[in-house]
Amino acid sequence: MYSYKHKVKYYETDKMGVTHHSNYIRFMEEARTDFLISHGFDYAKLEEMGIISPVVSIECKYRNTTTYPDVIDIFVSVEEVKAAKIRFNYIMKKADDTVCIEAASEHCFITKDGKIARLKKDFPEFFEAMTKLAENK
Amino acid sequence: MYSYKHKVKYYETDKMGVTHHSNYIRFMEEARTDFLISHGFDYAKLEEMGIISPVVSIECKYRNTTTYPDVIDIFVSVEEVKAAKIRFNYIMKKADDTVCIEAASEHCFITKDGKIARLKKDFPEFFEAMTKLAENK
Amino acid sequence: MYSYKHKVKYYETDKMGVTHHSNYIRFMEEARTDFLISHGFDYAKLEEMGIISPVVSIECKYRNTTTYPDVIDIFVSVEEVKAAKIRFNYIMKKADDTVCIEAASEHCFITKDGKIARLKKDFPEFFEAMTKLAENK
Amino acid sequence: MYSYKHKVKYYETDKMGVTHHSNYIRFMEEARTDFLISHGFDYAKLEEMGIISPVVSIECKYRNTTTYPDVIDIFVSVEEVKAAKIRFNYIMKKADDTVCIEAASEHCFITKDGKIARLKKDFPEFFEAMTKLAENK
Repeated sequence: MYSYKHKVKYYETDKMGVTHHSNYIRFMEEARTDFLISHGFDYAKLEEMGIISPVVSIECKYRNTTTYPDVIDIFVSVEEVKAAKIRFNYIMKKADDTVCIEAASEHCFITKDGKIARLKKDFPEFFEAMTKLAENK
Repeated sequence: MYSYKHKVKYYETDKMGVTHHSNYIRFMEEARTDFLISHGFDYAKLEEMGIISPVVSIECKYRNTTTYPDVIDIFVSVEEVKAAKIRFNYIMKKADDTVCIEAASEHCFITKDGKIARLKKDFPEFFEAMTKLAENK
Repeated sequence: MYSYKHKVKYYETDKMGVTHHSNYIRFMEEARTDFLISHGFDYAKLEEMGIISPVVSIECKYRNTTTYPDVIDIFVSVEEVKAAKIRFNYIMKKADDTVCIEAASEHCFITKDGKIARLKKDFPEFFEAMTKLAENK
Repeated sequence: MYSYKHKVKYYETDKMGVTHHSNYIRFMEEARTDFLISHGFDYAKLEEMGIISPVVSIECKYRNTTTYPDVIDIFVSVEEVKAAKIRFNYIMKKADDTVCIEAASEHCFITKDGKIARLKKDFPEFFEAMTKLAENK
């Protein structure tokens, strides 16, 4: 099963001796863009075309801590595709298979005219691929 | 009404031209520790006593973007005090009073023996003060 | 004497228990932009005019550590103004007056045509003000 | 020739559209710890033994910008081993082989008694290995 690997950096820890909780939000972004590339959708290319995809919401449950130099396995899945929004789920695990993070994020897409995209109409290929992933999750 | 002010730094922006969404999680921490100090509870002193307070969960809704050099007003309140957990709410506003962030975070407390604190028994003064703030929110 | 104050954030510390060394480079940026505003030059406005000012070089000597929640006093001065480059010095001190950081940074300026600015010709007012500061340092 | 690869993350860019200059200091740390592991010296294990290695100084020249999703090749070498200090050099290159960063960092080592280590006496194996690398650079 596909996972994105993030090796915790020393500078990502805090004085509690663990990965600072804000960094997992960054790992979600890394994993999500990698996941989309693995399905043929390259965020860097979207941006060059004038499309941006702001984060609409984040939820994150902290189950276990990690620290430098842990390697975290991040499993991304598409939970739901709505008219104008897509929701991803994230499970992060340590090498010993304990879950450290359960999270979700929602994103909309802004077209180059500055409007919120209707996914089915504006990006039909993307809509279809994501819907298929959501069905097979 | 009490608010904590965060001035967005250039290094907190990203190539979309706005404050990167992960940074608001950091602003929540800044505002929360400042809020607790304003109510007589200094996290740095707690930590010196061997008590730590991990984040249990985060929720964050992104309503509007900010960018350098915006000044964000962060309003913190205690939403709920449970046996072993406390939940804070956050509203962040821009200078023109538009809401940019609505968020919440939950925290537990670990005693110096490494156990999850029962707030009422282990930190009665803190429990009482936070409960009062939750009632008056 | 003018100083910019940075209060160290919890998320700026690392598992060594101190402010991560990369963050001082960020504090230099905060202090420099604040210093320039205090002399009438607002970087945000320059950028709106299409002018950007990349960092050309950084030097930083780490004399003493700081940690959350230390307040650092940052003293900025103009060391030298060259044809196309300006060099700033930074001294950072803790509350007890011990020096924690001695640093310098060099910057050039890119005009809206994408060319490296000749300071005297392209930004005469800025050139003169900075030269005066360098002479009186 | 050995190089450490860093893929620039979206959250490492700033509103100028490029990797924020402070992040290269972090990439140096990543590359240095990876370089030391590749020569048999694991910083995480040193730290477990009570040894820490603070950064004494940093120098960084910014030759070219990078941005998301560039992959940067980082070449680390030992420039000099002194009695109590070691100096590393860094060259960072983009995929097209243009140099983006030339940098150096100096580090001392603190023994578990809290004293600055004399490398030859306190860590003879490490001293010898690093000296050999400095000679063959």
